[in-house]
Formats: sequence, C-alpha cells, structure tokens
Amino acid sequence: MKNYSYLCFNCKEKYSSKYIEENLIYLCPKCAVADKNQPLRGILEIVYDYSSIKEEVSVSSFLQQQPGKFWTYPYLWPIDYDENRLTKISANQLSKLTLNTNNIIDVKIEKNQFKIFDDSKNITLSYKDRASILVAIKAMQLGINEISAASTGNAGSSLAGICARLGIKCHIFVPKSIPQGKRVQIQSFGANIYVVDGDYDEAFDLCLDVSKKKKWYNRNTAYNPLTIEGKKSSVFDMFIELKGKLPNYIFVSAGDGVIISGIYKGLKELLEMGWIKKIPKLIGVQAEYSDALIRYLETNRFEYLPACTVADSICAGAPRNLYMAAEAIMKTNGRGVRVTDDEIIIAQKSLAKNGILTEPAASATLAGFLKFRKTDTHDLHDSMLMITGNGLKDVSSLEQWNAPPKIKSCDIWKNELL
Amino acid sequence: MKNYSYLCFNCKEKYSSKYIEENLIYLCPKCAVADKNQPLRGILEIVYDYSSIKEEVSVSSFLQQQPGKFWTYPYLWPIDYDENRLTKISANQLSKLTLNTNNIIDVKIEKNQFKIFDDSKNITLSYKDRASILVAIKAMQLGINEISAASTGNAGSSLAGICARLGIKCHIFVPKSIPQGKRVQIQSFGANIYVVDGDYDEAFDLCLDVSKKKKWYNRNTAYNPLTIEGKKSSVFDMFIELKGKLPNYIFVSAGDGVIISGIYKGLKELLEMGWIKKIPKLIGVQAEYSDALIRYLETNRFEYLPACTVADSICAGAPRNLYMAAEAIMKTNGRGVRVTDDEIIIAQKSLAKNGILTEPAASATLAGFLKFRKTDTHDLHDSMLMITGNGLKDVSSLEQWNAPPKIKSCDIWKNELL
Repeated sequence: MKNYSYLCFNCKEKYSSKYIEENLIYLCPKCAVADKNQPLRGILEIVYDYSSIKEEVSVSSFLQQQPGKFWTYPYLWPIDYDENRLTKISANQLSKLTLNTNNIIDVKIEKNQFKIFDDSKNITLSYKDRASILVAIKAMQLGINEISAASTGNAGSSLAGICARLGIKCHIFVPKSIPQGKRVQIQSFGANIYVVDGDYDEAFDLCLDVSKKKKWYNRNTAYNPLTIEGKKSSVFDMFIELKGKLPNYIFVSAGDGVIISGIYKGLKELLEMGWIKKIPKLIGVQAEYSDALIRYLETNRFEYLPACTVADSICAGAPRNLYMAAEAIMKTNGRGVRVTDDEIIIAQKSLAKNGILTEPAASATLAGFLKFRKTDTHDLHDSMLMITGNGLKDVSSLEQWNAPPKIKSCDIWKNELL
Repeated sequence: MKNYSYLCFNCKEKYSSKYIEENLIYLCPKCAVADKNQPLRGILEIVYDYSSIKEEVSVSSFLQQQPGKFWTYPYLWPIDYDENRLTKISANQLSKLTLNTNNIIDVKIEKNQFKIFDDSKNITLSYKDRASILVAIKAMQLGINEISAASTGNAGSSLAGICARLGIKCHIFVPKSIPQGKRVQIQSFGANIYVVDGDYDEAFDLCLDVSKKKKWYNRNTAYNPLTIEGKKSSVFDMFIELKGKLPNYIFVSAGDGVIISGIYKGLKELLEMGWIKKIPKLIGVQAEYSDALIRYLETNRFEYLPACTVADSICAGAPRNLYMAAEAIMKTNGRGVRVTDDEIIIAQKSLAKNGILTEPAASATLAGFLKFRKTDTHDLHDSMLMITGNGLKDVSSLEQWNAPPKIKSCDIWKNELL
C-alpha cells in the first residue's frame, strides 16, 4: 500500500490517512466550517508521494490502462491494495463498476468544433458515479456497510445504484423538490429515502447529523474528500484515451464546484508526475441565477443568494466547494461563464439534434462554450466539453420543448406526406 | 469488398446483394407476405462466403477486436469496405457509433447465478442501436439521406439518435399509445414524428407506403433484413469479451422475434467458421398475453390474438419475425417460457436492487430464467440474460412500485431515526 495523506485546503494542515479514516473525519479538524448557506471550509485534499510513484511507473505503462477501470492503477487512489490488487473487494464486484470506455466524441455543430467527454452512460447515467465508486470502496475497506448522502438527485441516485451493485445499504436524504425521475431511481435501487420538508441545505445537515450518530459512512458532496478525489478520474480516462495529449480548454458546469475541483486535481497530478508539460484552462459554466462561483471570482467574496435554474444539478446558492473551484479556474488561467436558462435549453436541443441527449446541467457546458466564443478572441478549437448527465434523468426538461405532436389518421398523414 | 448474398428464409431463393440493394428490396420478391396481423413471410437473410473468410481470418486475430466496434471486422457485415476501412463513412462518424464495451456482468440474486449482457447503456440506451447503426451505414453507402421506421418506441428512438449522430434525416411513424419518454426521445433527436390514430400495425403499413413513394430507406424491424443482421453483433461482442467461450443458455425476450433471430444468426456463423464447437440454447421469453411465438412452438400454427403486457417493447400480437424466431429456438434445442406481468415487475425490482435499472421487456429475461429454473431440472449455471433497454426509458413502469414517499420535517426524521 502506498502512502498518502490528507491536506486541509484552507489551513494547509496535513493529517495521516490512518487518523482521518479511522476517525471518520471529513473536514479539517482545526478549521472546519460547515454552516448553512455557506461554502464548506476545511475541505481535505489527498496527497500522494509522487516522487516514489514516478520512480515505479512510467507514462507508457500508465497509458496501457483501460479507461473506466481506475482500480487497475491503485497507486494513484486513496484505497488499499496489495500487489496491485484491491483488498476486500472481489474481482467480481469490481467488474460491476466498470465505467464506459471510449467516452470521447468529436462534435461539430455549425461552425463549432469541439470534443465531448460523455459521462452520461455511466452505471447510473451520470458523472457522480466516479465519486460514488471511490466512496463505496472506501466504506467497504473500512468495514462499514451503510453509506449515506444528501442529494438534490444525481448524487443520491448514483450512490444508490453503486451500493446496490455492491450489496451495501444506503440512506439518501433529499429535499421535497427532487425531480420525479431521480427520486424513482433512488427508490428503485432499494435505498432508504428520507424526503425532507425543506431544502437541500436542511437535508444536508440532517444527513450529517444522523450519519454521525448511526456511524454511517457519509458521501455528502465536497464534504467527504473522496468525492472530489473520485471525480479526478475523468482526467485520467481522458489522458489515456487521448494517448497522452490533453485539450487546451476543458468546459465544466459548476454548482457545488466539486467536479471542476476534481478535474483540476487530476490535472495537477499529471503535471506533478511530469506526464504533461502544461495544464488545460478550466472554464466553469454557471447558470445566470446560480452564479455564486463567478461572483466570487469577480468580487473575491462570497455572498449567498437563493439560486434558481432549470439545470437542477448545478443549482446552488452556496456552492459547497467554492474556494477550491475558484482556485481551479484561477490557477489554470481559466474563467467563469454565465449562461441563461434559455441558452442552456438551446444547447440541450442542439446536442440532442446531434444524438447526444443530456440533462440541462450537462448541456450548460455547450452554452458556455458558445458564449465564450462570442465574447472572447481565444482560439477554442481544442476544447473538451464535459457531459455529466443523461437527458432521460430529467424528461420534464425535454418535455418543455417537445410538446405532444398531433395525432392524425393514416389517410390524413398520406394526404399530407404524398 | 467481400461477397455476400440474400437468401429468402421462406422459399430459399438466393439473390445477389447488388440486385436487392440497388432495387431497395426488403422482402423476398417471390414469396413475400406482409399482411396486417400476420407475421412477415419472405424475410431475407444475408449469407457470406464463409470458407473464404475463414481462410483469411483466424480466431485469435478476431479475438483481438474491441467489442462494440463491429466495423473493425467488416468482412462479417453486409457493408462496403476497402482494405478493412468502410467506404463513405468517416472515422469520425464511426467513433460516434461505438457501443459500450465490457457489457457482461456476473450477477447473483439469492441462490441464482448468471451473467447479464447489458445493452442498456448503448447510444440511445437500448439494444436497437445495433440494428439502427447497420441500417444507417447501409443507407449512407446507398447514397440515401432519409431513413424511416415504424416503431412502438425503442426502435424509433434508436434510429432517431443514430441518424442524429450521423446527420441523416429520419421519419418515425408511431401509434398513439407510445410511452411519453420514448416519444420525447424521438422528438428531441430531431426526427420527424408521425403519430397515427391507430395501432402499430397501421403505423407500420403507413410507413412502408410513404417510404416507398418517397424513396426513404426503411428500417421497419424484421422487414429490413439488416435489422436482424445488425442484431447479431451482440453475439460477436459476447464471444470477444468472453475470450471465445460462450454460455450454455442465452435468455432473450421476444416480441417481434428479431433480436432472438439475430442472435441465432450470429451463433450459426460462429459455428460455420469453426470458431465454436456447439451452439448455446436460446430461451425465448414472452409475456403471458403476448405469447404468439410460444403458442406457435406448441401448436405449430400462428393465431392472431391482440397482445397486452406491461412490457411494451415485446407487445406483439403478430410477431414480425415469428418463423425465424421459432427456428432459432428449435434448432438450438431451446424453448419458450411464458411469464406474467407480475413476474416481469418482480424481476425488474430484483435487477434494480442489484444496481441494474431495466425496462420491463428487459427484465422479462430474468423472470423467464427464474421460471425455467423452477419448472425444469436443467443446470442453468452458465446462463446469459440479455438486457435490452434502460429503466429510464419507461419511468412510468418504475413509478408503479415506487409511490412517492412521505415528506417529513427534519425533526420528525430525527425522532424516527435516532
């Protein structure tokens, strides 16, 4: 097993993995702040002994890995393994966790060319599976057989599906506003669901409280550092699939800011290993009325405003991972792009017309790409757009622009068509 | 380009591919019968020059292929290619058609062990993509840029998605009973949709009629032989993924009978090439009130009865591909298994609890497996269950056993949980 430790993103205190994990600590014991309507403070980051990994693994051997099976290179994950095999997880269980390979698609919409990284066909049809898998493996290695999460929808359905595949019990706390499809997914997977007469923040707090007392392993996003860590896996998949050549720009939609932070983490590590020479620019896309991260980048201060957008998965008045996300954008010389709900829907339409059915939070990246292109002189020809959720996870958003068509008799159709 | 020809399944007349394709013929010119409420007669089958392929390709080189990219071995497909590259299709277009790799999952539910072949994460989340891809390639090679299909839902949404990826126009004829999710999928992909005030049979006929006059390439299932041909690809994927070792039993749900026929076709070809020694038994699963194929196996005659089942994708009073499907079962020493709608829903539940979210037509294979196991002494330990469609394609079926849970305040939840 490799050495790794936990580093507080805020106060830079470093902790041993043994201490953090054996005590089920999530946020920095010194400086943690997890108030309602506030970004979390004291989020822990995992740090490896890069120089020793580098000595043992070459870039060419790393490029032999299969995308979507990150346990085949466990040395870059905070998981236990022995002679490159994960402990306490059977090969059979791992085979159930394989993500899609061949995620990357070249797309051309009108004059715009870009690549998409399609995570909409993962096990539960969203990017969140990357975090859920890592969290579930960790829970099992810790000998905990019950996992909990608060969720607006995707994270909960993801954890429920992954836990179902592994035979682990799971508990999902959701606000009453959860979309029907995601709620049904959670229930179908057999999770215990607790619908709270309140908002996501209240569900979040209730989940923390109950989990602590019940000793459930908690997957609350950003709160559990393994959620960010799990989300870096897309970068490695991308690196392998592109045979070592990353794009210049990566567009990511941002709500709580965990995905963009995870991606930045993966990039930093590739740089650290000396496997890439420069880091792609991260462009964070937010909805006009759920833009706390962008406002923070502009003013350098966080202000809570109630959020509202058609893209429920990135609706966050107080992004849980605000600061890390802001750093991801600043350190990569990226930027934030605000898009309207109308632009998100137009992008959803446009992707669907190209055979890619997305939920609004996923199509937001295309909306951001198009807007960036208009307002900026940058050459975006080498851009990757992250597609984070399938359209069938939110049929109601598709219904909005696809009213039921008229029903006609065969004879009338013939007259009209011929 | 390899030689292949079209053979009538009914009268055994053989036709050149040039003749059939240049004249856009679908059914046997001599004996075709395509009456309402009747199975099609005169379905054409594609036949290759197996001995010459065998001389050129070894099993070990075939096993190097990547599952889900069948164009990398074009010699077994009725498509044009030059030095192993498909003509008139760009590499970029092909990259958009890649199916999931690693489809096979080992499952254990109670005391039952089996494998599933998961096609619920294909491009449009159903097995139908296998047929749509082949049909679309063929249309493009024929220089036709408009494709049509009649569909109860999945075939239409599949064709719409594949055509969208390739930039081809498509026309889908559906009965007014189409489930909302599938209808919205078709519309979102930008297909022209024609909702008929009538049933699937009427939509089928209207589609044929209009397509003929408009010179659209037609993908009506079973009717276009490439639909069956496309559906054999799962067998090759399975063969590659299992490194040459096929299961003893393959369970397939059957409505029109095209999937089971396609699977049988793939198996026959492997046998023909000498790459397998014996053929797996095909078990066709049907819903109790949509069991025309099983009744045919029992009585050796077809009788039309209106069909009714919760599994809309296998609801067929007059299975379009009845005879070929019956042969697939008989020639492999397989059998048919009838399951009730209740058993289908119990199986859907059971798969979901194991992290596999299916539509009812897909879970029917598990229902059939469990029933077969009860009533038969066969050793089913080496069984493969085909999963043909994602649960999110039909959320209403999931809603039936997942009523909205009670909404409670945080305090009440705390009292109950702690």
